[in-house]
Amino acid sequence: MTRIAESLDTSPDYSAEVVIIGAGFGGLEVAKVLGRAGVDTILVDRHNHHLFQPLLYQVATAALSATDVAEPVRKILRRQASVKVLFGAVTSLRPEAHEVRLRSGQRLRYRYLVLASGAITGYFGHDDWARWAPGLKTIEDARHIRSQLLLTFERAERSNDPEERRKLLNIAIIGGGPTGVELAGAIAELSRYTLARDFRSIDPQATRIMLVEAGPRLLAGFSEELSAYTETRLQRLGVEVLTGKAVDDIQPGHVSVAGISTPVGLVIWAAGVSASPLAGQLGRTDRAGRIAVDECLAVQGHEGVYALGDVAAFKDEDGRTLPGLAQVAKQQGIHLGKGLAARIRERQALSPFRYENRGNTAIVGRHAAVFERDRFRIKGWLAWLAWAIVHVYLLVGFQNRLLVSLQWLWRYLTYERGARLIVGDRPEEVRSEDPGSVRK
Amino acid sequence: MTRIAESLDTSPDYSAEVVIIGAGFGGLEVAKVLGRAGVDTILVDRHNHHLFQPLLYQVATAALSATDVAEPVRKILRRQASVKVLFGAVTSLRPEAHEVRLRSGQRLRYRYLVLASGAITGYFGHDDWARWAPGLKTIEDARHIRSQLLLTFERAERSNDPEERRKLLNIAIIGGGPTGVELAGAIAELSRYTLARDFRSIDPQATRIMLVEAGPRLLAGFSEELSAYTETRLQRLGVEVLTGKAVDDIQPGHVSVAGISTPVGLVIWAAGVSASPLAGQLGRTDRAGRIAVDECLAVQGHEGVYALGDVAAFKDEDGRTLPGLAQVAKQQGIHLGKGLAARIRERQALSPFRYENRGNTAIVGRHAAVFERDRFRIKGWLAWLAWAIVHVYLLVGFQNRLLVSLQWLWRYLTYERGARLIVGDRPEEVRSEDPGSVRK
Repeated sequence: MTRIAESLDTSPDYSAEVVIIGAGFGGLEVAKVLGRAGVDTILVDRHNHHLFQPLLYQVATAALSATDVAEPVRKILRRQASVKVLFGAVTSLRPEAHEVRLRSGQRLRYRYLVLASGAITGYFGHDDWARWAPGLKTIEDARHIRSQLLLTFERAERSNDPEERRKLLNIAIIGGGPTGVELAGAIAELSRYTLARDFRSIDPQATRIMLVEAGPRLLAGFSEELSAYTETRLQRLGVEVLTGKAVDDIQPGHVSVAGISTPVGLVIWAAGVSASPLAGQLGRTDRAGRIAVDECLAVQGHEGVYALGDVAAFKDEDGRTLPGLAQVAKQQGIHLGKGLAARIRERQALSPFRYENRGNTAIVGRHAAVFERDRFRIKGWLAWLAWAIVHVYLLVGFQNRLLVSLQWLWRYLTYERGARLIVGDRPEEVRSEDPGSVRK
Repeated sequence: MTRIAESLDTSPDYSAEVVIIGAGFGGLEVAKVLGRAGVDTILVDRHNHHLFQPLLYQVATAALSATDVAEPVRKILRRQASVKVLFGAVTSLRPEAHEVRLRSGQRLRYRYLVLASGAITGYFGHDDWARWAPGLKTIEDARHIRSQLLLTFERAERSNDPEERRKLLNIAIIGGGPTGVELAGAIAELSRYTLARDFRSIDPQATRIMLVEAGPRLLAGFSEELSAYTETRLQRLGVEVLTGKAVDDIQPGHVSVAGISTPVGLVIWAAGVSASPLAGQLGRTDRAGRIAVDECLAVQGHEGVYALGDVAAFKDEDGRTLPGLAQVAKQQGIHLGKGLAARIRERQALSPFRYENRGNTAIVGRHAAVFERDRFRIKGWLAWLAWAIVHVYLLVGFQNRLLVSLQWLWRYLTYERGARLIVGDRPEEVRSEDPGSVRK
């Protein structure tokens, strides 16, 4: 049966000169460049929107709405007539046949393939923790964390047991990179300011926020000076910074750090990502699940296959693998898009990619951020302003820029947050955990 | 066992002078008035937000974000120190014990109870249709319809079968009241303008939108003149208006109207609501599931129990039951809140409620609406402007007003919609329904 089906099955459902998998920062740039060059292209993604991930923590902490940080891929590429957008999940790569397959069973044939499928939350072999410690990579993740975060306060308010209330108001964030730091700062401000006067039985200001980092310091990608500043700043907001301490176990309602178990109302996982599993279909991947690419972003051993962004392991001149940053993916996307267009149009060979570091930034709290580019460092209010301007500028779409700017201004003036919605989590999940008071 | 548990179980988890069930337009007004009078009150709702239902169709049609039309109940009542907000689902009323029970098992004791639990989508005995024809009452509903609506276009774009594409671009809306009319107009504009240039294989302008109404005309609550205007206006937008035709059956991918089955990509149910099932725990309800109340909004046969809004059947002087409108619930809430405060503080008797009709409005499309108050009628651009101003004014929260105004202005100028997000519906649901092309 299978053989007959396969043999009948010679014409693909779609074919294009270039197929791009993933509409993140990298894939989208490739599509834009190819679209401007009029190259016949298909861009396939399992979401209908491009997500501006650097602001996702603000959705998770009720500061922005999901629609503020996402833009329909079709709308972004509306004017690129040669680019067709498909909403679908790629399940297998078949580089020998120059085809990819979607979960729907449809097949896309390509001459060149660009794998830009990004990364997913990684639990370093502890996938069972995913259920109790949600990660933050998608809109669904952000809404889920937002609901769980707000539910923690609702649960505490509903409880009649002071001990249980205290436990519920313990929040642990695992991972002291930019996402963990940003979440800790934002949750501290939510509990200290926004929610301060909204409850009658609990005091949200008493929320205990733990930021757990296995390495020796926060923001390992930054200089020690900025790490120290970040730690002090978070501590001033009331965050307990636990560096050099690894998580041993996560259970519902409990987290164990360096051998000590603490009852918690919420655990958020910001400790790591691993590359999209599609990378593994192209060969052996590194520890982070990434596939190696050469200096032109080509995947060795497969003709016409390229990879970039979080899914690719690209080594710079010093032999260091480039980090999983939006600007890396974006620069690679522009470079590869131009290269492929020239190759298709003028049969030119691809040129080597060179990364230009435009600087790293992380937000530490209300008008406090760190910025670093090589030896140039700023921190505090000025870094925050620079961060805000750059991030608004990088948002796709004028409407998003306007709405996000206004919401930041509003929040800055009032400490209010406009997106305090619990949706999809039913209120019966808010219950006293004291078995004596739980009935049918 | 049960008897022992019951006998031990004499002290409630919470008690208050007044318990209000539901934070909709009615319940919220009662809470505000009682809060200002310092009356010890508990407001319980199964959502953490007050929902501005009149704009919910704009969330369902990707024009507004969910957070624009919802405001946390706690935030609204922040300054009412005597009002405690509980997030929970009431499962039973026990008026003889002056108690209500939450699904969590917790019990709330009251001296006065205000039932303001609103309405749910009603399928007139065809509950099996709910799965194929979602209704529009909650944020979840609106997001679900939005995803399904956008998925219909994605499905059609993905299909290689022209016949199937045509079928998928049939959209049926059941019910020609204000919600059905507003949805039909908004979906027509979405397909004619916003999406027009976003697809490569389909032409969204070819979308066939059917508005099905069993009664003789659209907007039965308005005058015949405005019904006729609405019909003409929708037809000009390309909507097929089918009045005097009842739905016989709804199946996945098909709807049967007046004996004729049509293949469809999406069916939306806007044909009716029925009162919250809690009403039935207080006595016999009317056909719409509402409990009768006297001229002071008291439920007969239960001491200290009141009902208002969509859950109550209140007869005006002419013996007509007041319709389920926001303004009815709101006026009743203010009246009852003041009455209860005076009764509790000064032992005054409650006074009869009198409804003052402030006029009805429905939006028919871009700068077109109808407004009617007794013999005063306006239609078209002016009615639309009045509608926009009134609705922005009625939104809770300055931030929401500002954001919604800006988004309307932006949409008016560009035809863009900022909230075209498909979330929670996985792309594998986008599949060709041609069995030949569906594989594992």
